[in-house]
Amino acid sequence: MSSQSIKELCQLTKQSFKEISIASSELKNNTLQSILKNIDLLRSEIIVANKKDIDLLKSKDDAFVDRLTLNDERIDGIIESVKSVIGLEDPIGCVKNLKKMKSGISVGQMSMPLGVICMIYESRPNVTIDAAVLCLKSGNSVILRGGSESINTNMVLSKCLKNALVENKLPENCASLIEDANRDLVNELLTYDEFIDVVIPRGGKGLIELVSKISKIPVLKHLDGICHVYIDEYADLDMAHDIAMNSKTQRYGVCNAMETLLVSQKIADNFIPKVISSLFEKNVEVRGCSKTVKYNQKILKANEEDWKTEYLSPILSIKIVQSIDEAINHIEAYGSGHTDSIVSSNKDQSEKFLRNVNSSSVMVNASTRFADGFEYGLGAEIGISTNKLHARGPVGLDGLTNQKYIVLGEGNTR
Amino acid sequence: MSSQSIKELCQLTKQSFKEISIASSELKNNTLQSILKNIDLLRSEIIVANKKDIDLLKSKDDAFVDRLTLNDERIDGIIESVKSVIGLEDPIGCVKNLKKMKSGISVGQMSMPLGVICMIYESRPNVTIDAAVLCLKSGNSVILRGGSESINTNMVLSKCLKNALVENKLPENCASLIEDANRDLVNELLTYDEFIDVVIPRGGKGLIELVSKISKIPVLKHLDGICHVYIDEYADLDMAHDIAMNSKTQRYGVCNAMETLLVSQKIADNFIPKVISSLFEKNVEVRGCSKTVKYNQKILKANEEDWKTEYLSPILSIKIVQSIDEAINHIEAYGSGHTDSIVSSNKDQSEKFLRNVNSSSVMVNASTRFADGFEYGLGAEIGISTNKLHARGPVGLDGLTNQKYIVLGEGNTR
Repeated sequence: MSSQSIKELCQLTKQSFKEISIASSELKNNTLQSILKNIDLLRSEIIVANKKDIDLLKSKDDAFVDRLTLNDERIDGIIESVKSVIGLEDPIGCVKNLKKMKSGISVGQMSMPLGVICMIYESRPNVTIDAAVLCLKSGNSVILRGGSESINTNMVLSKCLKNALVENKLPENCASLIEDANRDLVNELLTYDEFIDVVIPRGGKGLIELVSKISKIPVLKHLDGICHVYIDEYADLDMAHDIAMNSKTQRYGVCNAMETLLVSQKIADNFIPKVISSLFEKNVEVRGCSKTVKYNQKILKANEEDWKTEYLSPILSIKIVQSIDEAINHIEAYGSGHTDSIVSSNKDQSEKFLRNVNSSSVMVNASTRFADGFEYGLGAEIGISTNKLHARGPVGLDGLTNQKYIVLGEGNTR
Repeated sequence: MSSQSIKELCQLTKQSFKEISIASSELKNNTLQSILKNIDLLRSEIIVANKKDIDLLKSKDDAFVDRLTLNDERIDGIIESVKSVIGLEDPIGCVKNLKKMKSGISVGQMSMPLGVICMIYESRPNVTIDAAVLCLKSGNSVILRGGSESINTNMVLSKCLKNALVENKLPENCASLIEDANRDLVNELLTYDEFIDVVIPRGGKGLIELVSKISKIPVLKHLDGICHVYIDEYADLDMAHDIAMNSKTQRYGVCNAMETLLVSQKIADNFIPKVISSLFEKNVEVRGCSKTVKYNQKILKANEEDWKTEYLSPILSIKIVQSIDEAINHIEAYGSGHTDSIVSSNKDQSEKFLRNVNSSSVMVNASTRFADGFEYGLGAEIGISTNKLHARGPVGLDGLTNQKYIVLGEGNTR
């Protein structure tokens, strides 16, 4: 794909935005319905293309092949997720906070789509459909840049999107797949701030760092999920045990899994031996501070690097702290602003934690694994943001909108 | 000021954020009260420093001197504006949308400060206080970088801020003035994304373009205010006349003044002669499309450049359009996304305009001059944003906050 044609693709996508931005809820839902119909119709073509992608893989790492694979069951899953987005309320055009001012004008806000969203993602081909339907439902156009290893699969999925758009008389460039795996194109793409309003990268830390570094366009992202659970001196220790275990071991390779457990000195003797024993039962490697290692000789000594590490694997670091303040300071110093939870039955302590920890999700007596768009009732998520501007935490349809002011007058002048 | 000391100043400001971010409403209001007390106490020192700045000016352009000048009356105005911010509700720590999910957890959002805000502004020294009190009230720390020509005034105003912070046992670096007029420091400042969360430039287009171009940090800004009023075929023509005149002539040099008047062909004969006569009475130069020029020989012919120009002066361009669609397309092609207004008594037409024009403020039957934080009931504004992410339109205290998710559980696990 030439540089000229990438630019053209971006221009066409920008032009298409006008139409999708003003499309009615009915038209958008009909289009999503056509998308799932096309996926179902092209099911065998998708699976053939996906086999081709897998055959072309150089590294046959199991986890990687698994992420790339689409079979009938997973295609059903994609169709289900499109259905669930159809069921969500249209976030566009809602007017809120309308208030009459002393001057006589009424001022309110109307939700609008962001514009053109550029998704840059790695192997999972389901992102092609998930991201596209969320963008379209929220009135945005989308440029899709999937991983090079899933290009054949993505081209068939893109055909499903384009067929559906054309069937509903919308411009096919409301969803534009970049059908070229050349890596340099990403660099070029990220300079087109006149066509693209926001970039959402999804994938490994390397990809997200690269995109953030070179993008001239605002990037909605999170880099790390170094999530903490703090077991307060006032914790119910059975609850603390269950939340710690669930936060760490329910799934290891996810961004909302706990990576560091902070334990109040005052309950350490009663809490640590039991949780260590459960962790070892699940074959979790434990790296502890100088106080923690004394509880069990199988605990390795944690170093400074451990507190900064997102293991994404069955490894946990544990630190014993003197007070809630030390816990909060540790989270501020080493956390990634993703998700942090306190286990405490004391209201003052949990309110302090809620107010003073400035992460995108802060929890009381709940597993960090709940930090997720579905669990938060958003219906779906396009990503998680640890940015300070715009949406924070799981980003659903609302995060793909902004609020413009509307003013209703009766001939008012100043 | 050495590069080392700029970096240190940014670090100190970042460190101070923790304390201001968790300060109670009472402490923040007491600090604002101390600020206005200190301004009153140091009144004569401020005026002496301001005289020094004016004496040092190379160009004695009247408008420039006027913007720079602080006298007793203007100092009273600054004190009044601090008082009005004290009266505003504290936007931090409010919990909203708390909902119980099927899983048993309750999910809501809590408003938090953004972090460290860097204000880069030009001559008006009142921005030093206005910006600082808005940032502090919303729990943010602020780095202030005023114009080189107001450095002496700003140093005394900064003393008022620091005295007040220290009197209230808050770190004095919650408000850090860069006491060095060297322009290169701005470039350096804009690389410190590890210390600064958002940059807000205020001043001429040159400054804002420069900041946007070099900043690695998100910039909250608007570049132009190319505002339109569209007089629909269903307009009440007396109302249309008054709104057009007010939008253009109430003040010329402001970003929310109208620069282009769009007129429906169907009412042009009845509307244009009268509005032209009123504009000429006010010595406004009129540049019209080929149809408009036929109404009066004093109307100059507008060229392509005119539709893209923010005159900020007594010049207006006028275009006659066939339909509301042509008006909307013109605004999309040439507008700056700031403020656009329709005058129409037809509900369908005005709803179409409201929904389809994607500017930060869209109005019906009201003067564009209402696009302002005070008029919108925000109490104050730190700037206007035409960004697509985060706050759009006039940015008040709420725009200086974000929403983190909070999750309240009772031991819930997944």
